[in-house]
Amino acid sequence: MKHTTARRSECPINFALEMVGDPWSLLVVRDIVYFGKRTFGEFLGSEEGIARNILATRLRQLEERGILDKSPHPADRRKDVYSLTERGLDLIPLLLAAADWGFVHAPSTEAPREWIELVRERRDDVVPLIRDTVRAGGSIFVGAGSVLDRLETLSTR
Amino acid sequence: MKHTTARRSECPINFALEMVGDPWSLLVVRDIVYFGKRTFGEFLGSEEGIARNILATRLRQLEERGILDKSPHPADRRKDVYSLTERGLDLIPLLLAAADWGFVHAPSTEAPREWIELVRERRDDVVPLIRDTVRAGGSIFVGAGSVLDRLETLSTR
Repeated sequence: MKHTTARRSECPINFALEMVGDPWSLLVVRDIVYFGKRTFGEFLGSEEGIARNILATRLRQLEERGILDKSPHPADRRKDVYSLTERGLDLIPLLLAAADWGFVHAPSTEAPREWIELVRERRDDVVPLIRDTVRAGGSIFVGAGSVLDRLETLSTR
Repeated sequence: MKHTTARRSECPINFALEMVGDPWSLLVVRDIVYFGKRTFGEFLGSEEGIARNILATRLRQLEERGILDKSPHPADRRKDVYSLTERGLDLIPLLLAAADWGFVHAPSTEAPREWIELVRERRDDVVPLIRDTVRAGGSIFVGAGSVLDRLETLSTR
């Protein structure tokens, strides 16, 4: 893939593919959005088994491309903490679309059906709720204040 | 990427990335959905300049993965005609999400703003209209009976 200063075309879909169109980058974004992961070690531990060198390259690229911010870990300065920028948070609808397609077409899947259906039915409410939660340091599935915990705020709207 | 029979994980997002998570596959799907392209030569001519061997590999993979169907060209039997399967048509929301993200974040873009805004505002009407049009052999932007031509049917709903 060429650098962004020499894009392959002016097509916005091509731009998205030049930024995150590889088999690994969106998994890092997924790890943050769905599971609240933040560190190199946490990303490395994900089930897909990304190699250390590929992960290091992808994290650097995602930072260069304005999708991730990196800051020192508050409790352990040898570690970095990664979070999504506004540009990175804007990838949430793309993740949801990928999850929906995979849920329908994968021979088996671990995604909870109720969640997939909720996103389909209440998309305009769910996307901002995910965004706000992740921006505040939470995630969809994991941790206190997760999107799942906050769904009650949704149903009373 | 491993073969689908040995997936990296049971995550549906990972499945989508194993199927179309590379810098080129979704451009072929885009060429069909947005521009009505159907043949090897038409895909090869797209602005991004895909190499012949990469295109040949991607077309074969997309067929193996159940995303494209291939049939002999009715007018020239030396050529094949590619079309999207139902599984391939289900990628339309993913394409729209990628287009929206690219439109917002690419420094410049060729996408018409009115189209991007229409998809945002009338997503539940637009997605089925695109799907029906592409299934019938049309496309979003090109040809008689394009989605753009059919928008009037949308506004009178």
